[in-house]
Amino acid sequence: MTAAVFDFAPLLPAGLPAAAAKWTGLAKYSFVGGNNDPDQVPLEGLIDAVNAVLKREGRTLATYGLASGPQGYLPLRQFLTAKLKADAGIACTADEILIVSGSLQALDLVNATLLARGDTVIIERDSYQGSINRLTRLGVNIVGIPLDHEGMRMDALAEALADLKSRGITPKYIYTIPTVQNPTGTIMPVARRTELLRLAEQYGVPIFEDDCYADLIWDGQRPPAIHAMSKTGNVIHIGSFSKSIAPALRVGYIVAGWGVMSRMLSLKTDAGSGALEQMVLAEYCAPHFSTHVPKLTRGLRAKLETLMEALNEQFGTSAEFEDPKGGIFLWVKLPDQVDTLKLYQAALAAGVSINPGPEWSVDKAYAGSRLRLCFASPTHEEIREGIALLAEVCHREFGVPERSANIEKRGRA
Amino acid sequence: MTAAVFDFAPLLPAGLPAAAAKWTGLAKYSFVGGNNDPDQVPLEGLIDAVNAVLKREGRTLATYGLASGPQGYLPLRQFLTAKLKADAGIACTADEILIVSGSLQALDLVNATLLARGDTVIIERDSYQGSINRLTRLGVNIVGIPLDHEGMRMDALAEALADLKSRGITPKYIYTIPTVQNPTGTIMPVARRTELLRLAEQYGVPIFEDDCYADLIWDGQRPPAIHAMSKTGNVIHIGSFSKSIAPALRVGYIVAGWGVMSRMLSLKTDAGSGALEQMVLAEYCAPHFSTHVPKLTRGLRAKLETLMEALNEQFGTSAEFEDPKGGIFLWVKLPDQVDTLKLYQAALAAGVSINPGPEWSVDKAYAGSRLRLCFASPTHEEIREGIALLAEVCHREFGVPERSANIEKRGRA
Repeated sequence: MTAAVFDFAPLLPAGLPAAAAKWTGLAKYSFVGGNNDPDQVPLEGLIDAVNAVLKREGRTLATYGLASGPQGYLPLRQFLTAKLKADAGIACTADEILIVSGSLQALDLVNATLLARGDTVIIERDSYQGSINRLTRLGVNIVGIPLDHEGMRMDALAEALADLKSRGITPKYIYTIPTVQNPTGTIMPVARRTELLRLAEQYGVPIFEDDCYADLIWDGQRPPAIHAMSKTGNVIHIGSFSKSIAPALRVGYIVAGWGVMSRMLSLKTDAGSGALEQMVLAEYCAPHFSTHVPKLTRGLRAKLETLMEALNEQFGTSAEFEDPKGGIFLWVKLPDQVDTLKLYQAALAAGVSINPGPEWSVDKAYAGSRLRLCFASPTHEEIREGIALLAEVCHREFGVPERSANIEKRGRA
Repeated sequence: MTAAVFDFAPLLPAGLPAAAAKWTGLAKYSFVGGNNDPDQVPLEGLIDAVNAVLKREGRTLATYGLASGPQGYLPLRQFLTAKLKADAGIACTADEILIVSGSLQALDLVNATLLARGDTVIIERDSYQGSINRLTRLGVNIVGIPLDHEGMRMDALAEALADLKSRGITPKYIYTIPTVQNPTGTIMPVARRTELLRLAEQYGVPIFEDDCYADLIWDGQRPPAIHAMSKTGNVIHIGSFSKSIAPALRVGYIVAGWGVMSRMLSLKTDAGSGALEQMVLAEYCAPHFSTHVPKLTRGLRAKLETLMEALNEQFGTSAEFEDPKGGIFLWVKLPDQVDTLKLYQAALAAGVSINPGPEWSVDKAYAGSRLRLCFASPTHEEIREGIALLAEVCHREFGVPERSANIEKRGRA
């Protein structure tokens, strides 16, 4: 006799997200997710680092937080103070840095510290899916600001702030990805950062600066972080090692003044983020980060060029995009008749995964014929084959491109 | 001219926990936290493991979740299926295991999946501080069940369930630490586990089994997990590598059927737990776990004996405790006039940290003269010195022990 299986469904509270589907592996041609280039993981350096650091101080793993306390491994925070000064112009101490389990935990901690249901936040109209989804789940009102080739538009931001003020609403923060914006790839120039700070101060709204792609700029030149330009400590800055070293490590960080840091720290009830990964990163990055990253970005730039060539060849003028100055993704506009949510389904069935635009924007109509393509993880060959297959599927489903360049090319061969 | 510092305080939502204090390091004599014995970290084995696994498959770090999907590194889940079968009698597949960032994340995921403000849960009266604090913050009504030397008392549980039912309340779960209970150190025998399951089924309440200390039993013999004894899948089981290998690694796991697992998985929005640590644990544990643990527990048992001797010597009959069958902590009763919350403050000022009983119990009065002492991390010498110092402070503050054995001994020297 088999007993009936206990049913948890009646116990679930209202408002849970849908149940997860069983994982079925990555698509053959995967243009989604922040995955990086396997060949660019600095494996030998990481192995040397892990041996050195474990031999020297591995027994500290017996203590939660090692000997560094709840803000994370001190040598990693010390590396970050030097890196942030050199790369982003941020002058901060190790006490103003909190190591977290990837920048996703940073999003959760900032949100838990500042947001309640019914609050209002300002974000870029097209933005990181994980940020949009979190805000939606928290029941927060999202005001999306359009972007141009220099990032968030300040005229639109000024208008939104004035409009909110006229309705008695002070937004909890202005969230921006100013340096290699996700998904548009734009970099906000210094003048616009200055204007953003001016508006933020005028309206008494803090800025939440997500800089997790900022290391990946082709020419290595980035504007100072908005955090670095603030004179009032009104910027919470977050970053990550996922894009510069390896995403599976799950190590990110928050830079903030103690006033708000102390509130985030009291919400970080996980007894610390993974210590071994913090130790390896500190040991590896201190001597090698500044030489590793340019090598990584050269490889990424080459893959981007393959992607743009493949799009031009397969989609012709149907695919519109700007050549981004860095990053791991390309934001593509297809003709209006293409519904990228439907394209996503059809392409997935054919073995190609893409990010449909509406999942990366608060304006679902605007983004309806747009898509995000990540290019770091697939090989050059997979990029070419995957985009050819995507064009075939798109032609079949939407008549776009008008005639698949792929088919034409095969006809000529 | 210095600009005024931006004040985040007006933006904070209601109900946040108090701001964290700046970390000032561990006490000289630290009897708190789940820290382990530094000399027992299997460092050489871990170094061998990390080298082997990184050389073999380190490039998978470029992909979120490695090649294993969101439930965690497959070889680690495969090790756990074998370990849980051998040690706890649990028959489960790798698909029923979710790797998490320490069992604290397991608590958060189970709670987020099942609990809403105003719900009722049943827990052991004296229980893990982290569990109690989470439930308090979630606004959940906690019903505490007293324990005896065999763990949660089933007569009291039956009474509580009947009482709740008479008031129309179905608790969301019965939370238990059945194997080396925290803080009492008791192990629930098989007969009582059977009775717990019978009551749970009678009242339609699932069981939340926290087994994170269950590896640390002096004689290596443990009863089957409650999860293993259930015929209906009504038990969510969680465990950890923090106590058996090293706490700073932050790797735990949840065992549950897909019905509830799929809901927890959709709430785990952290893009996976740290991959390097999962890889190292899988590589190390598969060949070495079963020989490492008995060695570890012999060392812990020796430290416990030092602690019990020191308490007997310093406190005499004033300190009452049961000799636990495993674990890393001792639950001590002092005379009623001792307020362990006050003792905690005075002892900390003298360089000794303890866990005051009220933080480890839902019955603050019952636990008011009790304390928890963790013995894995300090050396034998630190245990002796720290307990002598604690006795001095306790004598000074409360006249208990009546005359400090330490002072007497020094007088005789």
